[in-house]
Amino acid sequence: MGEPNKQATIALMPGDGIGLEVMAEAEKVLRFLRDQDDLPLSWEVLDWPSTAWHQQHGRMMPEDAMDQVRQYDALLLGALGDPGPLSDPDRYCLPDGISLAPLLSFRKGLDLWACERPARLLPGAPRYLADPRAADIDMLVIRENSEGEYVNQGGRLGQGTPHEVATQLEVFTRRGTERLIRHAFRAARLRLREHGDARSFYCSEKGQAAAQVCLITKRNAQPAWGELYTEVFAEVAREFPEIGLRHELVDAACMKFVQCPWEFDVVVASNLHGDILTDLAAMLSGGLGLAPSCNINPDSREAPALFEPTHGSAPDIAGQGKANPAAMLLTTAMMLTYLGHSASAERLRAAVAADLVASEGQVRTCSEVTAGIVEHLRA
Amino acid sequence: MGEPNKQATIALMPGDGIGLEVMAEAEKVLRFLRDQDDLPLSWEVLDWPSTAWHQQHGRMMPEDAMDQVRQYDALLLGALGDPGPLSDPDRYCLPDGISLAPLLSFRKGLDLWACERPARLLPGAPRYLADPRAADIDMLVIRENSEGEYVNQGGRLGQGTPHEVATQLEVFTRRGTERLIRHAFRAARLRLREHGDARSFYCSEKGQAAAQVCLITKRNAQPAWGELYTEVFAEVAREFPEIGLRHELVDAACMKFVQCPWEFDVVVASNLHGDILTDLAAMLSGGLGLAPSCNINPDSREAPALFEPTHGSAPDIAGQGKANPAAMLLTTAMMLTYLGHSASAERLRAAVAADLVASEGQVRTCSEVTAGIVEHLRA
Ligand SMILES: CC(C)[C@H](C(=O)O)[C@@H](O)C(=O)O
Ligand SMILES: CC(C)[C@H](C(=O)O)[C@@H](O)C(=O)O
Repeated sequence: MGEPNKQATIALMPGDGIGLEVMAEAEKVLRFLRDQDDLPLSWEVLDWPSTAWHQQHGRMMPEDAMDQVRQYDALLLGALGDPGPLSDPDRYCLPDGISLAPLLSFRKGLDLWACERPARLLPGAPRYLADPRAADIDMLVIRENSEGEYVNQGGRLGQGTPHEVATQLEVFTRRGTERLIRHAFRAARLRLREHGDARSFYCSEKGQAAAQVCLITKRNAQPAWGELYTEVFAEVAREFPEIGLRHELVDAACMKFVQCPWEFDVVVASNLHGDILTDLAAMLSGGLGLAPSCNINPDSREAPALFEPTHGSAPDIAGQGKANPAAMLLTTAMMLTYLGHSASAERLRAAVAADLVASEGQVRTCSEVTAGIVEHLRA
Repeated sequence: MGEPNKQATIALMPGDGIGLEVMAEAEKVLRFLRDQDDLPLSWEVLDWPSTAWHQQHGRMMPEDAMDQVRQYDALLLGALGDPGPLSDPDRYCLPDGISLAPLLSFRKGLDLWACERPARLLPGAPRYLADPRAADIDMLVIRENSEGEYVNQGGRLGQGTPHEVATQLEVFTRRGTERLIRHAFRAARLRLREHGDARSFYCSEKGQAAAQVCLITKRNAQPAWGELYTEVFAEVAREFPEIGLRHELVDAACMKFVQCPWEFDVVVASNLHGDILTDLAAMLSGGLGLAPSCNINPDSREAPALFEPTHGSAPDIAGQGKANPAAMLLTTAMMLTYLGHSASAERLRAAVAADLVASEGQVRTCSEVTAGIVEHLRA
């Protein structure tokens, strides 16, 4: 939790595609909240990382970008990537490997080793599951963000030949595993304090602990790190006797996310498993139009945290005012909490929720959605 | 496709938990169809691999099991694994790593490099998705079954120390990739021939090819094999100009399985991605009670193919007659097709489907479900 009275400086990075549109809305809301709540915030809008910057400079961001970003307290990113050409054959386009690289550079380079993606199904949100109990979905997926399947150590031997072999190494450290799992238990403890009562009723009916951490592995097929995760999980769990324990294999977890997502509380997963499970959880709780995300280092504020909606740059609808800014605004709320402005964040979240209900069934432009949300903030 | 007049010998391997119950039902149905359709089939019931065998012999199956199974044309497996103790503290239980190992041994040792898991939402099946278009789910996920993330090359350095590092290598060969992807395109071509007309209408409305192969990778984070898959996909696709092409990142694929699963036709994925996507697809098309699966070598019949429902041994309901044998019977139908008895297989599938509709809402025991299905076979 940041200090509420400290002046904070934010970098707004619109990025590509609908990132530009949703960032414009986030800036409106930030300005409104800063003025209304007298928040000690200032920000700068950066034109990188972006495909446009690449077009001009041959790279996604300046050479000293990693140094430059360290002067900020938080980075708010719209979306990256422009796979083109879709309808526009002249569009300057880059392979994902280049356009999305800044994301991974920030996560790894700034040691933002935890990614948090809450999933709650708000009233009025799109519903993909038939079961009415889906209304009770309220989970927090915590994803490892710095190692594991994403170390990108590998390559291609005999590239293009019939006997080619491609390898990719997965590397998991006990240090990385332990801090991740401890963070998940702390998050569960915090959730128990903050809204344990709401869950208690539900859980006591089911004979469960009111707070729970579910560990994800694929230890039956990938034992080396599956066992490391399992052992560290058991060790760290001893520090949190009030928290219930659960383990799911990643494949079974995907099924249970569909079958009974309301039974999950905090879920902790590796980089790749977390990537998959957070996208799935986002869809089950209303889709990408509503899914916020942050990349943080829970131990240190030396480097800025990175806030980005789970959605991508959606080139197919970019520039048409069709993007839903809600995910970006819920992401902005996560950032406000991080910077110590929980009350403003809570109001913003409530306004997004109220607007969802009030506008159900309406087709609105990106800025109309924001206008509706600001109305609720004003009220 | 097998030769319909050739005598075939099958090994029935009930395994653990509900495997025993559903295998008993499969045997009833096999006997019925053999007699009714005069099928040249015989079988033996093996008491291994199983946890019970481990309890007696200290291993899941005989030392020469891999040789023994080669005398059969097909292996039909119930389910493996008994994580115990659940309600029964005296139960003999084994870690997954041991009890499930025979599965991976068969797949790798018999070079059954393709796993096929069809997903169709049958009328009367449990429905998890709210959208009525889910009724049109009809996809075939083809999973790599012999390499990739499952090579289990790795280990733990400094085990138990604070500086422990666990590694797991992923190994993908061009040979393994090419045969997998070509098999997926062949399957798409077969589906186009068999029921292309049904899809044509739907697809022409959407401007899609009536048959499609969707490649799954995570090439933006794991480029080495992501690029290999992408290149081989493009090369092989040239041999199949009538088949539409699609690519999804594994995380986006999970979302789209929830959002619009009816837009997928054949999906081809690596071992781990396939594991995840097939469990998800199974759930979206009625759950594990209905999900069949086979492990085959499409190039060779030297070794027997392995047929197993996607579900596990479900120790929580084992021995209570609560298991749904339908997944096992649909798996048996896949085996009958493989052995050249497509007409019998088709009748069995139709009987399972008819029974589902006729029995909607009823709670029945495992053998009552089979009795219902046999009634439809008799009719
Ligand atoms: C863009 C991609 C590398 C990224 C990831 O896999 O982490 C994205 O899918 C995400 O979840 O933020
Ligand atoms: C039991 C396990 C090793 C197996 C797998 O991951 O392949 C199972 O989940 C499956 O899908 O058949």
